[in-house]
Amino acid sequence: MFLTRTEYDRGVNTFSPEGRLFQVEYAIEAIKLGSTAIGLKTKDGVVLAVEKRVTSPLLEPSSVEKIMEVDEHIGCAMSGLIADARTLVEHARVETQNHRFSYGEPMTVESSTQAICDLALRFGEGDEESMSRPFGVSLLIAGHDESGPSLYYTDPSGTFWQCNAKAIGSGSEGADSSLQEQYNKELTLQEAETVALSILKQVMEEKVTPNNVDIAKVAPKYHLYTPAEVEAVIARL
Amino acid sequence: MFLTRTEYDRGVNTFSPEGRLFQVEYAIEAIKLGSTAIGLKTKDGVVLAVEKRVTSPLLEPSSVEKIMEVDEHIGCAMSGLIADARTLVEHARVETQNHRFSYGEPMTVESSTQAICDLALRFGEGDEESMSRPFGVSLLIAGHDESGPSLYYTDPSGTFWQCNAKAIGSGSEGADSSLQEQYNKELTLQEAETVALSILKQVMEEKVTPNNVDIAKVAPKYHLYTPAEVEAVIARL
Amino acid sequence: MFLTRTEYDRGVNTFSPEGRLFQVEYAIEAIKLGSTAIGLKTKDGVVLAVEKRVTSPLLEPSSVEKIMEVDEHIGCAMSGLIADARTLVEHARVETQNHRFSYGEPMTVESSTQAICDLALRFGEGDEESMSRPFGVSLLIAGHDESGPSLYYTDPSGTFWQCNAKAIGSGSEGADSSLQEQYNKELTLQEAETVALSILKQVMEEKVTPNNVDIAKVAPKYHLYTPAEVEAVIARL
Amino acid sequence: MFLTRTEYDRGVNTFSPEGRLFQVEYAIEAIKLGSTAIGLKTKDGVVLAVEKRVTSPLLEPSSVEKIMEVDEHIGCAMSGLIADARTLVEHARVETQNHRFSYGEPMTVESSTQAICDLALRFGEGDEESMSRPFGVSLLIAGHDESGPSLYYTDPSGTFWQCNAKAIGSGSEGADSSLQEQYNKELTLQEAETVALSILKQVMEEKVTPNNVDIAKVAPKYHLYTPAEVEAVIARL
Amino acid sequence: MFLTRTEYDRGVNTFSPEGRLFQVEYAIEAIKLGSTAIGLKTKDGVVLAVEKRVTSPLLEPSSVEKIMEVDEHIGCAMSGLIADARTLVEHARVETQNHRFSYGEPMTVESSTQAICDLALRFGEGDEESMSRPFGVSLLIAGHDESGPSLYYTDPSGTFWQCNAKAIGSGSEGADSSLQEQYNKELTLQEAETVALSILKQVMEEKVTPNNVDIAKVAPKYHLYTPAEVEAVIARL
Amino acid sequence: MFLTRTEYDRGVNTFSPEGRLFQVEYAIEAIKLGSTAIGLKTKDGVVLAVEKRVTSPLLEPSSVEKIMEVDEHIGCAMSGLIADARTLVEHARVETQNHRFSYGEPMTVESSTQAICDLALRFGEGDEESMSRPFGVSLLIAGHDESGPSLYYTDPSGTFWQCNAKAIGSGSEGADSSLQEQYNKELTLQEAETVALSILKQVMEEKVTPNNVDIAKVAPKYHLYTPAEVEAVIARL
Amino acid sequence: MFLTRTEYDRGVNTFSPEGRLFQVEYAIEAIKLGSTAIGLKTKDGVVLAVEKRVTSPLLEPSSVEKIMEVDEHIGCAMSGLIADARTLVEHARVETQNHRFSYGEPMTVESSTQAICDLALRFGEGDEESMSRPFGVSLLIAGHDESGPSLYYTDPSGTFWQCNAKAIGSGSEGADSSLQEQYNKELTLQEAETVALSILKQVMEEKVTPNNVDIAKVAPKYHLYTPAEVEAVIARL
Repeated sequence: MFLTRTEYDRGVNTFSPEGRLFQVEYAIEAIKLGSTAIGLKTKDGVVLAVEKRVTSPLLEPSSVEKIMEVDEHIGCAMSGLIADARTLVEHARVETQNHRFSYGEPMTVESSTQAICDLALRFGEGDEESMSRPFGVSLLIAGHDESGPSLYYTDPSGTFWQCNAKAIGSGSEGADSSLQEQYNKELTLQEAETVALSILKQVMEEKVTPNNVDIAKVAPKYHLYTPAEVEAVIARL
Repeated sequence: MFLTRTEYDRGVNTFSPEGRLFQVEYAIEAIKLGSTAIGLKTKDGVVLAVEKRVTSPLLEPSSVEKIMEVDEHIGCAMSGLIADARTLVEHARVETQNHRFSYGEPMTVESSTQAICDLALRFGEGDEESMSRPFGVSLLIAGHDESGPSLYYTDPSGTFWQCNAKAIGSGSEGADSSLQEQYNKELTLQEAETVALSILKQVMEEKVTPNNVDIAKVAPKYHLYTPAEVEAVIARL
Repeated sequence: MFLTRTEYDRGVNTFSPEGRLFQVEYAIEAIKLGSTAIGLKTKDGVVLAVEKRVTSPLLEPSSVEKIMEVDEHIGCAMSGLIADARTLVEHARVETQNHRFSYGEPMTVESSTQAICDLALRFGEGDEESMSRPFGVSLLIAGHDESGPSLYYTDPSGTFWQCNAKAIGSGSEGADSSLQEQYNKELTLQEAETVALSILKQVMEEKVTPNNVDIAKVAPKYHLYTPAEVEAVIARL
Repeated sequence: MFLTRTEYDRGVNTFSPEGRLFQVEYAIEAIKLGSTAIGLKTKDGVVLAVEKRVTSPLLEPSSVEKIMEVDEHIGCAMSGLIADARTLVEHARVETQNHRFSYGEPMTVESSTQAICDLALRFGEGDEESMSRPFGVSLLIAGHDESGPSLYYTDPSGTFWQCNAKAIGSGSEGADSSLQEQYNKELTLQEAETVALSILKQVMEEKVTPNNVDIAKVAPKYHLYTPAEVEAVIARL
Repeated sequence: MFLTRTEYDRGVNTFSPEGRLFQVEYAIEAIKLGSTAIGLKTKDGVVLAVEKRVTSPLLEPSSVEKIMEVDEHIGCAMSGLIADARTLVEHARVETQNHRFSYGEPMTVESSTQAICDLALRFGEGDEESMSRPFGVSLLIAGHDESGPSLYYTDPSGTFWQCNAKAIGSGSEGADSSLQEQYNKELTLQEAETVALSILKQVMEEKVTPNNVDIAKVAPKYHLYTPAEVEAVIARL
Repeated sequence: MFLTRTEYDRGVNTFSPEGRLFQVEYAIEAIKLGSTAIGLKTKDGVVLAVEKRVTSPLLEPSSVEKIMEVDEHIGCAMSGLIADARTLVEHARVETQNHRFSYGEPMTVESSTQAICDLALRFGEGDEESMSRPFGVSLLIAGHDESGPSLYYTDPSGTFWQCNAKAIGSGSEGADSSLQEQYNKELTLQEAETVALSILKQVMEEKVTPNNVDIAKVAPKYHLYTPAEVEAVIARL
Repeated sequence: MFLTRTEYDRGVNTFSPEGRLFQVEYAIEAIKLGSTAIGLKTKDGVVLAVEKRVTSPLLEPSSVEKIMEVDEHIGCAMSGLIADARTLVEHARVETQNHRFSYGEPMTVESSTQAICDLALRFGEGDEESMSRPFGVSLLIAGHDESGPSLYYTDPSGTFWQCNAKAIGSGSEGADSSLQEQYNKELTLQEAETVALSILKQVMEEKVTPNNVDIAKVAPKYHLYTPAEVEAVIARL
């Protein structure tokens, strides 16, 4: 009886004969089902833009939070399982607050990102804070510290990369191509807003409105755009 | 031997190759077997209405509790496994009481909802308070705090959404459609009562009586309607 | 290889694809194999009556305890695995005694019932007091507190209902039908005794004697009938 | 692939779809392989008689202990796995000694029996004193306390019954029938000895000698018969 | 798919449908592969004799220890897994020393044997001292206490028997038959030495020398024979 | 049903019948998928060079860290799962800092390497710091202590070797051959840089630029080359 | 479905129906894949000689440590998994140091060996120091204490034997035969060196050089030969 690939996922954190970790790969699939999020770094700050899937007109659009504040100098956009993302963000909030308390200064964006990835890596180990499975979520972490603005991308394996621009979620493939064409380091923050939203528009199946997208910037403080501010960006498209 | 989808539920918290969490999806099925509950937010407060399945004339209708008080400014309606709901509600009661004790003020409705979802998310992790499986219950959490009235909907994955109106349980599909037609933000509390009960009436297989429905409001305090008050709403239909 | 329904019971507390908990359903089967027990609430108190299966003339009938005292104002009748019931009753006795000690007043019947159900719900979680499987027993809990007499029915899922009258065990289906016909809220305690025993007589395969039935009342104190008192009720049939 | 009944024993404490606990049933099978033991209660005290299987002439018959003292007013006969029985008896000895120490009076026979059954019930739960499987042994517990003489019968499920007379082990079926014919409550202790040994003789495949049976009484103190005393009973047959 | 007998060993301590514990039975098989050991009790003391399998001429025969001292009045011979036996003997040494320290007198031979069996019985339970499988070893425990000389035989199930004479290991069947023929209670210690060695000689495939047998006595102190003393016994054959 | 080799990986740390540990072998496969890294020891110090796979032009090349500092006298290059490597490096950083704090002197390179391997060996044991699977990463650890420069190579089994030169990752086979041809102990540090980069160039599929390789030396302090320094080495090729 | 032998290894420490422990047998296979090691005891001290497999000319031969010091009077040669051996040696170092600290004298060689075997025996038990599988390594432990020189051989089952001479590893079969021919107790230490190396030479596939063998002696202190000393022994062949 030869066992097939699909058997490997049952030990949550076990290598396959080819050296792969299937549960991590399956968690990445969960993200491909998620809504699209886009981040762009400019020299003045970082812009995040996300698609919100408001499945019913009776849902409160503002309660579909796909962009969250971590600290006043860090925000993140997410794609995948929202409850998982909340746990990671909550963990990062505690870490950044503890850092402020202990050292009297904000945590760097990289350290905050590393703290999130440490938790993500330790799934399946049975200790108190870790999950029994990988976190089914990718994050775009936008921040501004003494090294200036920065944008990080994390995946369920607990790995992170620093990026100039990045898209995650179901529309990420097309969006990443568009980003490579349209991105350059000299973009102003306002241009970045326009690029982000115009790319998001391409991958969304419905008309873009302040109800179904959120935009935030960290420049140098985190700010989530009001519906009016979102409307203004839409108007510039 | 290719394993089929049905094998994935055995690790309670494990991704399938498509990135899905089957135990959570199965728990959601448990709710589709449950009785129907409806919530509507008005500017004056929130109304909850539930169907009670009194399977025998010898059952005490008042002991079939499908709406429970969490704190004096928060109540919730449930659909699914009642024993699971009781555990979540008991957890929320302790959290809200602790908050009052520690901070001398009521917990916000969103924080209370988050506390419930944190517990729901952590199933299968073997710590003291969490379950070994997902909680097989959805809640409609009605509350009133300094941001005014609010209505939250939680599901077994530990995710929550803020809604203007929402139905859960076996009749939720039809009830949600009706809510979208009949709901508007200008409804008075009394109109909301009538809408809730008339929609519940459509999805129930028997005549509506004070014995087989419960109604509650949070406006701004939680109040479960007496049989006479329920009768009065029925009379207005 | 498609797995069939019977595979789901192996994770003791796992949902099936239809949202069902098979171990709980199997435990309910254990109760259908048990002896019949009946409870009736009157305005003066609650009556419990049970069939005792004395499998051998050499068994001491009084040692087949199917009705047990929880506190002086609470008693319960059981059907299913007797050893499991003893554990639940012992738990309730400790809880009610602790309550008396801490608050100087008896625990309410509902709180006592809730305490039993909390333990029943937590099976499969590996903490000290809980079982590794569902408790294979249903209880009829009769009590009298400041809200007057009350009768609760619990099942292996940890759910409870308040009833006017209820039958459990192998003959429960027929007995419940008879109860619906014969029960009314104006029954005197003595009439309730007669109704309970006459219904029990219908579902038992042998002649009713003080050896093979037990009767108890909570009115307002728990009292288990002596053989002579049982004989007197039999004589009235 | 339909799983058959035999698969259920692998979760040591799991219900089958019919509501059965197979490991307990299998443990009961272990007792059917054991040697026969008989107990009779008279108004003057209780008599226990057991078959001893002395498989080799080089074994010391007195070291095949099938009747053991629990406390000076309680003794027990066993059938099944002797090492398991020793654990239960040792547990009961500690409990009865603790009771004497704490309350200055002997533990009742029923409480001692309950203590043994509490341990037996908790198999498979991983705490310190419990076994990882059911105890494969049945006990006949003979005692004498303020309520007079009593005889209890326990099985691997942790259930117990009070009996006037009872046989356990491989010959229990035939022996129980004979007991029902020959037992009456007016037997003297000496008559009970004769009845016990004559029934044991019927179910044993070899000649009864002081080497292959043991007799004990609790009247009101535990006493294990010397070979000469056993010889005297044999002579009366 | 009917599961066969061989599946039951995987739960280390689980009953089969026939009431058997296969892992214990398999451990007994391990002993049937072991070298032969013989014990005889005389009125003056107990003699132990074992075959030593010195597989290579380069092994130091004295380091193949098959007879070990437990306390100055207790010794034991073993057959099966030597590393397991060392653990049991070490446990017994600690227990007997503790007893001497606490009570100022030697532990009885039966209590020492019981201490070994308690450890053997608790396999598979995950506590600190117990093994995760049965101990694959049988012991012949020879001792001398206030009741005079005694010989105990233990097996992997944690059961023990007192014997006049007993053989264990691969040649035990033939050796036990010979013991029944040649043993009588009036043997002197010297005669017992001769009987033990002559029987051991029959079941060994090579010539008996001081290199491949060990002899010890407890009369009343433990003494392991020197090569010269063994040679003297060989010479008497 | 014969089980095939692929079944052995499910117990994470279990021997196969041939005495192999498959999970470790599978983890080694994960490294064969990794980017190539090369280390060379000269008498003046150690050079590390790695390929960086910058999968998108929008990634920040400097954030793809394949060479990390452990202590000021130790650095390491990695191939395989980056998140795993970070955990090992973080562990080594804590160990070397603790050593400095406790003993007032730097930890030797061999002790640091041993500390990393101790953690790698203990996978699957459930304690706090260890992983539930092997670490899927190989390290080249370069250092300089009182014994002069040294280069260690670790693999997922927790084994380490001291080397003069070594390549790891997908191109290691070809690179190792080239190293054997070109390496000699008299290389200067500058020559070693050139050898390392020229070999890396052969196994990389794209043109070597400061963006897709990193170089570091420990001579005697750890130093990661700036893009300009890397450019200078490229220019010398 | 009959399960075959290969299924037994999955419970790491479980008997097969024939009374065998397969994981231990599989671990012994791992040693048969290891390099060859030889030990000889003379009256003046003990000699250890090992083959070192230096798989690449770029490996530092001295870092392939197959002989390690335990204490100044004890050394050991190993064959099998080197990382496992390091754990055992580290454990022995701590034990011998503790002994010196507590008792002010060196630990005996047998006690040190026993300490190693105690750890080896306890695999699969989940406590802190033990492995989750058998240690895949055999050791030749050479020492010198108040009883003079001694040589012990340990295997993965936790068993040990005292030897005059012994070979382990892939060439052990041939080497053991040669040892039986050439060994006698009157060998001088120098003769033992020559015998060890000449036998090692026979089983190695390449020319013997100071790079691919290590020699050590304990006479009475542990000393690992320098390349020059090894060269001198080679020259005597």
